[in-house]
Amino acid sequence: MSKFSIALHGGAGTILKQSMTADKEKAYKEALEKALLAGYTILEKKGSAVDAVEKTVMLLEDSPLFNAGKGSVFTAEGKHEMDASIMEGRTLNAGAISMVKNIKNPVSLARLVMEKSDHVFLAGEGAAIFAKSMKCEFREDAYFYDEFRYQQWQDIKNTGKTQLDHSVTKDEKFGTVGAVALDVHGNVAAATSTGGMTNKSFGRVGDSPMIGAGNYANNNTCAVSCTGSGEFFIRGVVAYDVSCLMEYKNFILQQACDEVIHHRLKKIGGDGGLIAVDSQGNLTFSFNTEGMYRACWGSESDKIVAIYK
Amino acid sequence: MSKFSIALHGGAGTILKQSMTADKEKAYKEALEKALLAGYTILEKKGSAVDAVEKTVMLLEDSPLFNAGKGSVFTAEGKHEMDASIMEGRTLNAGAISMVKNIKNPVSLARLVMEKSDHVFLAGEGAAIFAKSMKCEFREDAYFYDEFRYQQWQDIKNTGKTQLDHSVTKDEKFGTVGAVALDVHGNVAAATSTGGMTNKSFGRVGDSPMIGAGNYANNNTCAVSCTGSGEFFIRGVVAYDVSCLMEYKNFILQQACDEVIHHRLKKIGGDGGLIAVDSQGNLTFSFNTEGMYRACWGSESDKIVAIYK
Repeated sequence: MSKFSIALHGGAGTILKQSMTADKEKAYKEALEKALLAGYTILEKKGSAVDAVEKTVMLLEDSPLFNAGKGSVFTAEGKHEMDASIMEGRTLNAGAISMVKNIKNPVSLARLVMEKSDHVFLAGEGAAIFAKSMKCEFREDAYFYDEFRYQQWQDIKNTGKTQLDHSVTKDEKFGTVGAVALDVHGNVAAATSTGGMTNKSFGRVGDSPMIGAGNYANNNTCAVSCTGSGEFFIRGVVAYDVSCLMEYKNFILQQACDEVIHHRLKKIGGDGGLIAVDSQGNLTFSFNTEGMYRACWGSESDKIVAIYK
Repeated sequence: MSKFSIALHGGAGTILKQSMTADKEKAYKEALEKALLAGYTILEKKGSAVDAVEKTVMLLEDSPLFNAGKGSVFTAEGKHEMDASIMEGRTLNAGAISMVKNIKNPVSLARLVMEKSDHVFLAGEGAAIFAKSMKCEFREDAYFYDEFRYQQWQDIKNTGKTQLDHSVTKDEKFGTVGAVALDVHGNVAAATSTGGMTNKSFGRVGDSPMIGAGNYANNNTCAVSCTGSGEFFIRGVVAYDVSCLMEYKNFILQQACDEVIHHRLKKIGGDGGLIAVDSQGNLTFSFNTEGMYRACWGSESDKIVAIYK
């Protein structure tokens, strides 16, 4: 086994070429490619899939362009509340955090929960106390401030409405980032991170930190990271559903992803997409929206960096 | 369609007859039967499965014998933090809450999240604010105080250890309650509620509020409520796994439950059990522990109230 593959996403939604400037498109593609390269390099050097997905997601979190980490949207209270999860396919070990504030890289905190705690899922103040005990990097509110995000919040503040990142008034996008990878040792992993919905009530937990809903990895089948209308992804148990269709119905990866995104999720009214890699290194994107910020690359496949359908 | 069925559990674990007094056994059985009868009566009068599972779980929450609601164990901070979820099989609508304090009936709050909010999952202070806006019943800390629970906490306080309810020193039990039902209209529903682990770090989220892990309902397959070592139930996506085995591999209910509890969950090291009902009204218990507080009854089946294997 010496094949390796990686895929990432930076959110899905109504991302239309006509509403995108050339500069903006270039900035997005550069950010996607930079994150992709970081993960690819780890895998090429025989590093682990868990290391590759963590590093890739960290770089997406560090970019102000994506709704995760630094680029997180504003909650109804004008704060930034972040969720993340990570899972490794060999052991089915997993870690997740929700409602954390001021953490530079939520995905790394999720990994620490997986590796250094007795729990799978820590939320709120409890997660913050754990982060401090692990000496995680914290950042002041100013680090997460972004004029564009602030304006998004001002536009709908006090309306009682929530907004799925750039939704409606801008370029309707479900803001989440994620990565999936297969390493040369035959192990898959998945990581997902998000800043949630603009003007959301604090305390709302979406699908990103929920193992089986927004994130899942299993060496017998695949690794999956989702982005979309989180409530529907929870009710559809979307990430694990892809794995079950492969394990129980012998679907191949693309078939399983398309069945879930285009049929089962659609049926309950959910919008969004996912990225996935199977244990043979096959890579897949599937989304029922206009676009999805995405990229992939593998030892047996060409590099792709794309935005539109 | 005029068949109806209900099953409930009050936790699984090392529940041995030799460590139980006759009085204690009687008290447990009476509490189980009372909750069962309440749900059964609703179903018999053509009420909905959602109403039946909510009412049944409310009565278990109101009993000091079970680790949920009034009987919730103490956290490391000497507080009571509760999780709950509910799901209806017709619409796949779901509601969940986590880390709520001083709420008399967490399952009813989960139902309000399902029916009166835009979200599926609310946690912590955000869930408390929502509860207040919905005029939920709150109770003072004293309501949740129980000498036995307090002693459990004192025994392991400051040791850094957590305890799955009566674990090790007492009768090792995973404290969770739950109910599943099929109503005469052909709809299934599931509800689960827990006080978590004694001396747990605050912020730990278990499987009970996680749709797909500790609770799931789908009219095409079944309704499931779990109890056990929550971290393993999350990693195994246990409740949805039962549904997938039925939908994708055509397993019958008992076969699907046993495959998940005795093989797939065991393989990753998880202990516990579940109750389930399928869309034909068949009822099942499955657990890999010494016992599980449980009861079931249906229009076509006898009443069972049991504790040991």
